[in-house]
Formats: sequence, C-alpha cells, structure tokens
Amino acid sequence: MDTRIEITLPDWLAEAAATAPVCPDDEARLRFAIALAMRNVEERSGGPFGAAIFDGEGRLVAAGVNRVMPETCSAAHAELLAMMGAQRRLGRHRLNGNGNGERFVLATSAQPCSQCYGACIWAGIDELLIGARTEDVMALSGFDEGPLPADWIGELERRGITVRRDILREEACAVFRRYAALGGPDY
Amino acid sequence: MDTRIEITLPDWLAEAAATAPVCPDDEARLRFAIALAMRNVEERSGGPFGAAIFDGEGRLVAAGVNRVMPETCSAAHAELLAMMGAQRRLGRHRLNGNGNGERFVLATSAQPCSQCYGACIWAGIDELLIGARTEDVMALSGFDEGPLPADWIGELERRGITVRRDILREEACAVFRRYAALGGPDY
Repeated sequence: MDTRIEITLPDWLAEAAATAPVCPDDEARLRFAIALAMRNVEERSGGPFGAAIFDGEGRLVAAGVNRVMPETCSAAHAELLAMMGAQRRLGRHRLNGNGNGERFVLATSAQPCSQCYGACIWAGIDELLIGARTEDVMALSGFDEGPLPADWIGELERRGITVRRDILREEACAVFRRYAALGGPDY
Repeated sequence: MDTRIEITLPDWLAEAAATAPVCPDDEARLRFAIALAMRNVEERSGGPFGAAIFDGEGRLVAAGVNRVMPETCSAAHAELLAMMGAQRRLGRHRLNGNGNGERFVLATSAQPCSQCYGACIWAGIDELLIGARTEDVMALSGFDEGPLPADWIGELERRGITVRRDILREEACAVFRRYAALGGPDY
C-alpha cells in the first residue's frame, strides 16, 4: 500500500489564483468561484464545480475545482480541495483556529454535497457563500448531491458558520448548462 | 498556490496492510479496523479512528487512519483516506463501478462523521460495517461528529449501501478510552 495520497490541481488554477483580485464582497467572491467552475468545464479538467477560500479582507487563500475523474478520487470535490489547500498554506487544520479572531469565507459555485457539507464543519470557516442550489444542480445535470439534515443551514449556523445562498445564482446555473452542452459526464 | 495536495499515511500502516490476513466475515473486518485505530493511538500518529476497505472475499484493498493533526488537514479522516487509497489502487473513482458485480466493504472503527457519511455515497462501496456508535464517541471523547439526515441508514440503503453496526462495539469503544487515558486531543 502506498503511504502517499497525492491530488493534483490544474496548472491554470495556480495561475488564476496567483492573479486573483481582492474580492471585497459576496458577489465578487462568488464571481471568482463561478469563473473557476466554468474554466474547469472549458478546460475539461474536471466537473462543473469551483470553490475559493478568502480571508476577511477578501484576499484569496486557496482555490479548488472538481477533480474526481482526472484524479480517480470520488472525494476530490472543489470545496474539499480548497479547504485542504488553505489549511496547508496557513499551517493549521482549523483555519479560524489561531485565536486572533481572523475570519474565513468559503465561496462555492454550487451548494455543497453531503460530503463537503460535513467537511465545512471542521475546516474552520466562518461564512459559506453559495451560488446554485442543489435543486438547480439536479435539474440541470445528473449529479446526485446526497442527503442532508433537514435543517442543514441551522446545523451550520449553530456551529458558528453563517450561510448565504442564491448569490449570482443564474451565473452559477450557466456552468451546468455549458457542461451539459459539451456532453460532460455525470458521476 | 501549490497544485499538489499530498497526504501521508504512517509507515506502520503500510506494514500492517502488507501483512493483513484475509478477513472473511464482519467481525474479522471490524477487528482489523479497530486494531488500526488502536495502533494509531499507541503510535501517536493521529486520532482514534481506523478504517479498511475489503473486496467481497475479504482481501484488504486499502486502509486508513485519522491524520488530521499530523497532516494539517481537517478532512484527513480514516474512512476518506481508505477510500482514496482504494480508488487509486484499483484505478477507478467508484470502486464497484467496473460492471462485473464485484462488491466492496468499508469497515470503520466508529460511525462515520458527517463528511465521511457523505463520502460513502460516491465511493462505490456496497456495505458499511460500523464498530462504535456516534453516541459512544461523543460520550467517551470530545469529538463532534456532526449532523446527519434523520434516516441516515435508510438514505444509504436506498443508494444500495447496506449498513451493519454495533460490530465489536465494546472493543471499538476501548480505543476511545485508551486515547483519553493517554491525553489525546479532541478537535
């Protein structure tokens, strides 16, 4: 058994991250995450999902895109990879756990699936910003997003994570339409 | 931004995997997963959780242990790393997706948290075998296991994943007692 598990992100993503503007508000942060999702579709480098983690001033900490098929890894979702990248970069497994009150925001092009929903709880984020709803994803594609607790927003908010959704929802939905038009596989 | 995310498992785990016996039934599979969890505690190589994926004949495909703190990665749970390892080894992102009816079993020392619960849905496993319950974990440690759908077992079973729990439950609980006795951190 190999003791190393390596997941690779596309080179274009590193370039996009290096030139990311400061994103001062919810719309700017979602716009960046949606652009990553759309670019991932156009580059055929993975599924139609993008996510980005910003600090409280809107500076990008890390970004992720869906890499399930290229990386042969069902867990390689955009949000999870953004969290992993941000934690490595900051050197702590809970982003907001450094005791100085610094806040972190996860912007994701579509509502997190069951797995990434759970992952949010321990990542140390303070705000979750969502573009497309799960019902949009399921109407526009064949992706199964999995079951959530009935009060999934309340469960996050009780753990200190603010949720705002429907941010640039139409732009976020356009990614799934483009993915379908290009014949991208659902899995 | 680094385009590579690497997670490392302990060397002792590779040795344990290389010498794993064939595990023909639920108890043998759980015994192996629990032994990994206990070894992870004794070696101080991560949190008190272990998981293993077997094929239908009980041959080990891959194993994982909790590596959150050593790897600075809140997602590095035993089940997720076992899934990732198995998918890499077999070269497909859905383990049972090769169309020949082969079945895969995930044995985990404790009920999956919210994140790993969701991850099960896309990993391509057919059976989920559980040792300790979440209520045991929360009674014996300070770990928050996160919220699940009310009918979490039914949601898996409707997706073709059989769930059996309370397998060697006492042995599984002993891992958390040992972890607490050694003063292991909850996070």
